[in-house]
Amino acid sequence: MTSSWVPGADESGFGADNLPYGVFTRSGGGPRVGVRVGDHVLDLAAALGDPEFSAPSLNPFMARGSTAWRATRAKVSGMLTSEGGRASAEPHLVPLGEVDLRPPFEVADYVDFYCSLEHASNVGRIFRPDEEPLKPNWRHLPVGYHGRSGTVVPSGTDIVRPSGQRRSPDSDGPLFGPSTRLDIEAELGFVVGKGTSMGRPVPVSDFAEHVFGVVLVNDWSARDIQAWEYVPLGPFLGKSFATSVSPWVVPLDALGAARFAGREQTPEPLPHLHRVADWGLDLALEVRLNGEVVSRPPYAAMYWTADQMLAHLTSNGASLRTGDLYASGTVSGSRRDQRGSLLELSWGGAEPLTLADGSVRTFLEDGDAVAVSATARGMAGGTINLGEVTGTVRPACG
Amino acid sequence: MTSSWVPGADESGFGADNLPYGVFTRSGGGPRVGVRVGDHVLDLAAALGDPEFSAPSLNPFMARGSTAWRATRAKVSGMLTSEGGRASAEPHLVPLGEVDLRPPFEVADYVDFYCSLEHASNVGRIFRPDEEPLKPNWRHLPVGYHGRSGTVVPSGTDIVRPSGQRRSPDSDGPLFGPSTRLDIEAELGFVVGKGTSMGRPVPVSDFAEHVFGVVLVNDWSARDIQAWEYVPLGPFLGKSFATSVSPWVVPLDALGAARFAGREQTPEPLPHLHRVADWGLDLALEVRLNGEVVSRPPYAAMYWTADQMLAHLTSNGASLRTGDLYASGTVSGSRRDQRGSLLELSWGGAEPLTLADGSVRTFLEDGDAVAVSATARGMAGGTINLGEVTGTVRPACG
Repeated sequence: MTSSWVPGADESGFGADNLPYGVFTRSGGGPRVGVRVGDHVLDLAAALGDPEFSAPSLNPFMARGSTAWRATRAKVSGMLTSEGGRASAEPHLVPLGEVDLRPPFEVADYVDFYCSLEHASNVGRIFRPDEEPLKPNWRHLPVGYHGRSGTVVPSGTDIVRPSGQRRSPDSDGPLFGPSTRLDIEAELGFVVGKGTSMGRPVPVSDFAEHVFGVVLVNDWSARDIQAWEYVPLGPFLGKSFATSVSPWVVPLDALGAARFAGREQTPEPLPHLHRVADWGLDLALEVRLNGEVVSRPPYAAMYWTADQMLAHLTSNGASLRTGDLYASGTVSGSRRDQRGSLLELSWGGAEPLTLADGSVRTFLEDGDAVAVSATARGMAGGTINLGEVTGTVRPACG
Repeated sequence: MTSSWVPGADESGFGADNLPYGVFTRSGGGPRVGVRVGDHVLDLAAALGDPEFSAPSLNPFMARGSTAWRATRAKVSGMLTSEGGRASAEPHLVPLGEVDLRPPFEVADYVDFYCSLEHASNVGRIFRPDEEPLKPNWRHLPVGYHGRSGTVVPSGTDIVRPSGQRRSPDSDGPLFGPSTRLDIEAELGFVVGKGTSMGRPVPVSDFAEHVFGVVLVNDWSARDIQAWEYVPLGPFLGKSFATSVSPWVVPLDALGAARFAGREQTPEPLPHLHRVADWGLDLALEVRLNGEVVSRPPYAAMYWTADQMLAHLTSNGASLRTGDLYASGTVSGSRRDQRGSLLELSWGGAEPLTLADGSVRTFLEDGDAVAVSATARGMAGGTINLGEVTGTVRPACG
């Protein structure tokens, strides 16, 4: 991996060892697939002369499969690092300031896992203080559930505070109104490129043949709605109002230097979940609330790895489609300042956070702006940037 | 509503007061939207001269909204009941035997509710014998969760027995293998035609502006996988391997004579779930196992009505998309022979069923063929047929 001729790219976290994909428009033009390099977007359809990149989403490209992904990445990397490639690429570099970013892919099914030991333990203690924090299944399979793909929204979308039913403090019955415990969940999302047909589980060994890349996810959560509704069929309206994803899909191949064996697992999982390659990922997440860092969740602490999640998800023969998105669940480390949700940071509201401006928070207030970002070691020895996913809370409707 | 000139239509349950929509192909031709009448399909693109019906799914038509749905229904009804219409329709009637039926619509998000008091009570008793069968929320909101839309399959699709983790009878840990408690769930599904944007709940009063019609649903379930995995985030792989839907979408307007106020609810739901119109539905479901009727679940016994389900689903501002499918949950009545799942019919396996051929069943065996069908009173005073959803169990892979 060599350095790029694009000014500032090598130092930006968006150098030639990153090259994430997104979808953009320019004034008056239709949507196009682009690759981010430094503060520019390379217009792929133009630079590669391939009309399939003149598309409103990454889905057609992702559906081509891993051989095509690798060939394109090699071609783009070559263009951006060689003087020979410069001539064909430079005319098609667009400054970021001149584009609007679009949702990078069309979401088919959305699944949310629950793969952080610390997060699951914390939530168990807060939601079910009289029970063992982890259910008996937790160390045997990556617990997960389906979310609403129709409300997966791009970074920057305002989040209207949801209303819903919650327990009334004064009576046995519930009340209905705007959530008073609106929360975030800082997560990593895995984007399926190559689908499968029904009845064909994906073994852990085939993970990289199906998953195209990763995005950052903020799985907004209304804890009061969730706590009332979630028995016995799981979260529903406490989650389904919005899930935000970052604009740049970072290819798995850009994460090579971030890979490690993954956290040790006890007991050893059943054979179909045995790891056969290093898919632990050492990514440094950061959660900012109104600009202030409130948490630095370490993705390396996750208990289940993404190859195990995919093997589990398909172990019953469920098919995959291009555009399926599965997220890790909240990323939380063992220290308080590594927790990826306000539920945990404020311990269910019992321990408010004090922000730099002196204000305190248990859960989100109207006007609060949240950003989840992440970085990792890049193949060139520096740092690669996974971008960020942002959203601002707007007051409940009517 | 008058009678149809199509031979046998009036007596078939597919007369001029039904007119369900589906998608079909004929040898060599592309997919077309059709309306079933008797043992024929009316090719809508040809009969109405409207190329939008030359489509692989009902989605474009459904997206047009209720004014268009009603206008089309009136036009088709007129053609099929008047001698004047006969000339333009008859050349475009295709015998059912000459067509292949396709999935009628493209599923956006799939939600499964849990709206039968008897089913929820039975499952509670079987899964959690030491607790109150109903959780405290059950009478306050229609409990539901998201399922996997990518594995919603058309009637007739073979169902491969899923494998998965389940509790081992001999040890604390789980084992992995083919499900030994494969089950059915007989349900009614509601198909969303007209979508909404985020942050705009659909009031109960607007139900018929958004829901286009109904299908029959068999929500195949692996009870052993489900029982092990479902805490705390709900069912996942115990359901996600397959959900079958019937080929004919019966418009809400065909169900006018089946409507009634709905089952009484105690306590009265919160205001946003107050009923304002009669959306109880008196439909007679029938479950056949290898041709033998094993249950006759009465849809009229359902506790929550479909307008309440939709109001709840969107009460947090979640948007709807054309093609969203939400199902009622298993339909069970109070009598044993009205239960819509084998879990209930065999009481968790403790009370096997004896079939006419002398064989016994607790859960499904390889080769078992299941059909869920339904009828209702039609507007013309006779019976309308909702068709059926079928599937045959195939052995687990590998």
